[in-house]
Amino acid sequence: MNHKIKLICSYFLALTVSACNITSSNNLRATGDMGVVIERATGQVQIVNHTSKTALAQIDGLGDLSHASIVYSRDQRFAYVFGRDGGLTKIDILKDKIDKRILQSGNSIGGAISQDGKLVAVSNYTPGGVKVFDAQTLELVADIKATQLLNHEKNKDGSIKRSKVVGLVDAPDQRFIFSLFDSDEIWIADFSKPKLKLTKFTDIGRAPYDALISPDGRYYIAGLFGEDGMALVDLWHPDKGVRRILENYGKGDKKLPVYKMPHLEGWAMAGDFAFVPAVGQHNVLVINTKTWFQEGVIKVHGQPVFVMAQPDNRQVWVNFAFPRNDTIQVIDTQSQSLINTLKPGKGVLHMEFTPRGEHVWMSVRDENLIQIYDTKQQQLLKQIPAISPSGIFFTSRAHQIGL
Amino acid sequence: MNHKIKLICSYFLALTVSACNITSSNNLRATGDMGVVIERATGQVQIVNHTSKTALAQIDGLGDLSHASIVYSRDQRFAYVFGRDGGLTKIDILKDKIDKRILQSGNSIGGAISQDGKLVAVSNYTPGGVKVFDAQTLELVADIKATQLLNHEKNKDGSIKRSKVVGLVDAPDQRFIFSLFDSDEIWIADFSKPKLKLTKFTDIGRAPYDALISPDGRYYIAGLFGEDGMALVDLWHPDKGVRRILENYGKGDKKLPVYKMPHLEGWAMAGDFAFVPAVGQHNVLVINTKTWFQEGVIKVHGQPVFVMAQPDNRQVWVNFAFPRNDTIQVIDTQSQSLINTLKPGKGVLHMEFTPRGEHVWMSVRDENLIQIYDTKQQQLLKQIPAISPSGIFFTSRAHQIGL
Repeated sequence: MNHKIKLICSYFLALTVSACNITSSNNLRATGDMGVVIERATGQVQIVNHTSKTALAQIDGLGDLSHASIVYSRDQRFAYVFGRDGGLTKIDILKDKIDKRILQSGNSIGGAISQDGKLVAVSNYTPGGVKVFDAQTLELVADIKATQLLNHEKNKDGSIKRSKVVGLVDAPDQRFIFSLFDSDEIWIADFSKPKLKLTKFTDIGRAPYDALISPDGRYYIAGLFGEDGMALVDLWHPDKGVRRILENYGKGDKKLPVYKMPHLEGWAMAGDFAFVPAVGQHNVLVINTKTWFQEGVIKVHGQPVFVMAQPDNRQVWVNFAFPRNDTIQVIDTQSQSLINTLKPGKGVLHMEFTPRGEHVWMSVRDENLIQIYDTKQQQLLKQIPAISPSGIFFTSRAHQIGL
Repeated sequence: MNHKIKLICSYFLALTVSACNITSSNNLRATGDMGVVIERATGQVQIVNHTSKTALAQIDGLGDLSHASIVYSRDQRFAYVFGRDGGLTKIDILKDKIDKRILQSGNSIGGAISQDGKLVAVSNYTPGGVKVFDAQTLELVADIKATQLLNHEKNKDGSIKRSKVVGLVDAPDQRFIFSLFDSDEIWIADFSKPKLKLTKFTDIGRAPYDALISPDGRYYIAGLFGEDGMALVDLWHPDKGVRRILENYGKGDKKLPVYKMPHLEGWAMAGDFAFVPAVGQHNVLVINTKTWFQEGVIKVHGQPVFVMAQPDNRQVWVNFAFPRNDTIQVIDTQSQSLINTLKPGKGVLHMEFTPRGEHVWMSVRDENLIQIYDTKQQQLLKQIPAISPSGIFFTSRAHQIGL
């Protein structure tokens, strides 16, 4: 009997060792070449790998993912997904599962992560403001309430409404910058010291609806829905206040039907120029970033939504608003001219470049596909099935200011 | 007996599961906030984490690590260490061990990884040339022999010597660029098609000794040991050939004692200006990158070695050659003036910024320390013991062109 038990024991021991080896080597996954793709219609995300060009896992239960976006922890292990329904979901991309999930407001739009990776901020429509959470635990650290709207109708519970918050980004030195849609303000929230410091710029222009920050974290630029022009803050000199630039940028007098306001976060900065989606017109504008004057215009296929520069700044890729959203155009930044037109299929919603720029991934929503192209020849390399994909976010964003 | 066996079995099963859980959760490590530090004197490296500011592991058996440098696989799992003795070592930073190691030449200096991460190239002194390896297997893919030196003395074995190769970098579209010290050439090796294509520029200036590539991968600039000035190739227009720039850059007529030729890879590009270590003089030069003319000079503590810009381009950090290598100076890029002088200790050899720039790590060789400072206040945050540390390389380099 002892002999039998010994045999059984050694069998199990061998099994233990081999099971553990399988487990540990299967689990070993570096995170530098990973990403998360939003599947908007079903409240799901896919975890992907851009070296093998494959989907690794699908995770559901993320709520309303319209307009959802993602930032990453500084170790590139956790993806923070900002949903439209106020959901903030922390996904562990090594374990392929939700680590934590909270409903932090009734209606939210986008978020950011601090330079040191310790704070996650969410911009909210209802109630208007920014909530800041501990990135590890998702416990509330600060609740920054937006300006009260005294002349607006009240909330259902009788409380006074607050301005919606948009265009939230991170900036160096533990700062978050954001715009207040209803009260025409830009605020800087400085978390570098134990006590939060708020700097408020008022009368910045009518109804800021989105914003961007330059890749070096210096310039914050908000687009205006209520008038033409944009509002710029030089974060190296916040004492100089807000400067109005690009006075003709916007819907103009013609009041063309605007199918979709362009995304400002997608602005391409290449050399001395920014390539900017025109509002409501079939144009990409070329802006000199020294003077902030428009220096050129490139006619394109439709109303541009995202205008994105390759990591080497040699080409700019453009997608378009409905009904022309089956097309991608490629612009050469030196000649400032179109060099290619692609037809990926209906509903091209977003693009993401691999970190060093050899490939670009596209969400083609109505075809239920992610398409992967090489940037040099602009040839389709591979397709991955996905349910109504929208935003694509690679982990290399963890290392970039403002993303 | 059956009962006993069942009991034993369930005990082992429980053990298996718990052992596996421990194994798998201990092994889970994301790679976005990791790095490798060279310990030159002992042929070792330390694997570090820049969120927890700790050393995770030490690995030995890497041979002669004088002047050693590192590139990363695109998933940020493998560090390729280029040793001085021709050793090419692939380290698995998830398993804390050497994955593969080869001796690929007798004497080598630096390397690079291709845009797609599939090729690793090493520049060799003896025999002079570049060897290119499969990044996964380290099998030889191409052996690019440098120009023969017909008027030099022969090798011991009677074969004709070839030029030493220096300043090897990667560029977009699967290219490697490098300089030939003895034959005054710059070569482009293009691996984008099945058949390797070599482009050779001759008479580029006397004795190129090191080179850099701009962060967008457009400009390759080689420093000259044999005369003043530098050689520039615009990789967007290689047909235009080599242009000579900065005609006064170099040792000049005075022939000052040069304790150490500055590292060109460390050039700081901030806005329209490059901040460049002067050769043999106690100056940092300010160069306009539109005209490539010198526009300013900043007096510093000693002969600068590395001149490195923070990720937000607001400040430039400088270390110095022996005997003044106990000091670091910080330059404000807007006012182009010194704002701080630090005394970390003897033998400050290298610096590395965290990806979004909140901290900088320094190797202080003769104190056997790695020091970590915050970039805003320039205060020492922590010290980590290390044996004669030199180069520090964080995994975020995997996502950058030319690093």
